[in-house]
Amino acid sequence: VSDKKYLILAEEFSHDPHYAKTARGVMRYRRDSVVAMLDSRRAGESEDGVPIVATVDDALAFGPNTALVGVVTQGGHFPGDWQELLKRCVTKGLAVENGLHVRLHDIPGLADLAEEHGVELRDLREPPGDLSTATGANLEADATIVLTVGSDCAIGKMTATCELDLEARKRGLRSVFVPTGQTGIAIAGWGISVDAVVSDFLAGAAERLVVEGAAKGDLLWVEGQGAILHPIYSGVTVGLIHGSAPHLYVLCHEVGRTVVEGDPTASPIVSLSELIDLHERMSLKLRPARVAAIALNTSSVSEEEARSAITAAEEETGLPADDPVRFGAGKLLDAVLRRRLGGAA
Amino acid sequence: VSDKKYLILAEEFSHDPHYAKTARGVMRYRRDSVVAMLDSRRAGESEDGVPIVATVDDALAFGPNTALVGVVTQGGHFPGDWQELLKRCVTKGLAVENGLHVRLHDIPGLADLAEEHGVELRDLREPPGDLSTATGANLEADATIVLTVGSDCAIGKMTATCELDLEARKRGLRSVFVPTGQTGIAIAGWGISVDAVVSDFLAGAAERLVVEGAAKGDLLWVEGQGAILHPIYSGVTVGLIHGSAPHLYVLCHEVGRTVVEGDPTASPIVSLSELIDLHERMSLKLRPARVAAIALNTSSVSEEEARSAITAAEEETGLPADDPVRFGAGKLLDAVLRRRLGGAA
Repeated sequence: VSDKKYLILAEEFSHDPHYAKTARGVMRYRRDSVVAMLDSRRAGESEDGVPIVATVDDALAFGPNTALVGVVTQGGHFPGDWQELLKRCVTKGLAVENGLHVRLHDIPGLADLAEEHGVELRDLREPPGDLSTATGANLEADATIVLTVGSDCAIGKMTATCELDLEARKRGLRSVFVPTGQTGIAIAGWGISVDAVVSDFLAGAAERLVVEGAAKGDLLWVEGQGAILHPIYSGVTVGLIHGSAPHLYVLCHEVGRTVVEGDPTASPIVSLSELIDLHERMSLKLRPARVAAIALNTSSVSEEEARSAITAAEEETGLPADDPVRFGAGKLLDAVLRRRLGGAA
Repeated sequence: VSDKKYLILAEEFSHDPHYAKTARGVMRYRRDSVVAMLDSRRAGESEDGVPIVATVDDALAFGPNTALVGVVTQGGHFPGDWQELLKRCVTKGLAVENGLHVRLHDIPGLADLAEEHGVELRDLREPPGDLSTATGANLEADATIVLTVGSDCAIGKMTATCELDLEARKRGLRSVFVPTGQTGIAIAGWGISVDAVVSDFLAGAAERLVVEGAAKGDLLWVEGQGAILHPIYSGVTVGLIHGSAPHLYVLCHEVGRTVVEGDPTASPIVSLSELIDLHERMSLKLRPARVAAIALNTSSVSEEEARSAITAAEEETGLPADDPVRFGAGKLLDAVLRRRLGGAA
């Protein structure tokens, strides 16, 4: 429960699944807190009942109290016009939440303006100041910990995690989504953006998240990051694996993706079987984790192709597979719960 | 070539291989730049011709121009008395170099004092401000890249790396030691402490190091960090593996070590064969690296035990093994060069 009333800033990109990952995630999993979305190219339209506006001033009629930077760009910088947009939000009394690498406090004049108008600037990627190295408290957390891992970045890990958590809560389980990135933090209202943490404290940050998660419930869905063989982000992935100390993995993959996206070297993606074996062997020796199920992102293919890809993944791996967005998260949740009851926790 | 004249600050710990890792590394590999060492408990002694003194004032007779913080503590903080010690150094006109997590600039009053006395404060762990994500330039670096990896932290990776580089330079090779931690940086005068880098930029930092290294020579020995299954530091290890894009690994292990040190969970160390397989499979798909040799740290056992441990490691792994400190780095270097000529680069 929150009194946030979001204006999602998604200028130019509100439709784009990559650039507007945060906008789309919040629209999907925190729809109740959204009162308007800004994208001048689509002004006058609406999406899932949310009006799309051209300007901050146009949005005010819908009563927002917080502007959320809904786009994520590769370098993490604010495009030029965005600074003016953010200043307009602040001038109109909106708090601002931002998940980009660039900090709101580094925009010249914005902090002064925010103080003048009595609004808060919140950088979602800014890690807590008191992080430290992992202590082993992750192994003591009184919860079943499930980590989503994947064959690549931006492949549906956060979405699968949110769907599994939603489905578990629908069934009355004390389920908790544990956010590790800016979009997840915007959705859940807590968390640490682990890729923004100093490397030494990576596992420590992940450990803190599962300790905090275990205080909220007893079935934790930890949002994965990167990929174990990703040439750029693998360090984050492995730190998160060891720091969050999962009992089980859900392995996420996008049908048809064969090459790591956003990697200039175009590194090939290895097979699901190889990924399963690598993740299981790279687990903590004191917490050997198994892959419980395969979450397939089939958004780019037909329903028929999706069903045959799911069957193929099941045949290759011997594990239950499904697309939790297209066909619901029930089957994957069942697979996790079976493994959990099988003595994983 | 450098005009550094170090006073190594190693109060209470000058003998300790863990706490005084930096002191001992610089004494061993940059002896020519050291004029005195401070450890009041051993005042009046000398080590490898370096006088040991009780106070900063006593050291001045030996003409230091730079004080080097030679101890590394677990939490990375300065013990209380150290702040006074550092202020005394600055007051006496010495520059200060520090590799702890805590920054010299965060010691109240020290920066002002340094400005007043016209001396530099240099935090060796402070990463460059312009780091970014990896770009693939690592795969273009025109050099053979050898990364030391290990079964644990503090197991002799830096030492093995320095010994291999020294031996290669003795043979006239254009060999370069590539430092990734504070001690290595103190020894070589350049480098990046990769564990202090924001996680997103980990591989980017490692990539920059091999690109810079390739401008200095054509056989790069990259100092490894952490361990691939280390519960606390594995993220750093894997980011370094993928960012430095090695052609070959040298796997380091300490005879008799069976449990990860400094890890509160006392995680077991897996076998050498398992470590070899894991490192090779965790390599970049576009740069499949092989383990070329095993560097054994036998400092805790007799020479006879050392020789039989080396034989046992060779039998287990089918690879050449040796202790480069005890018996020289020649055999390990030969093994790397054979693999390199075998088409690794």
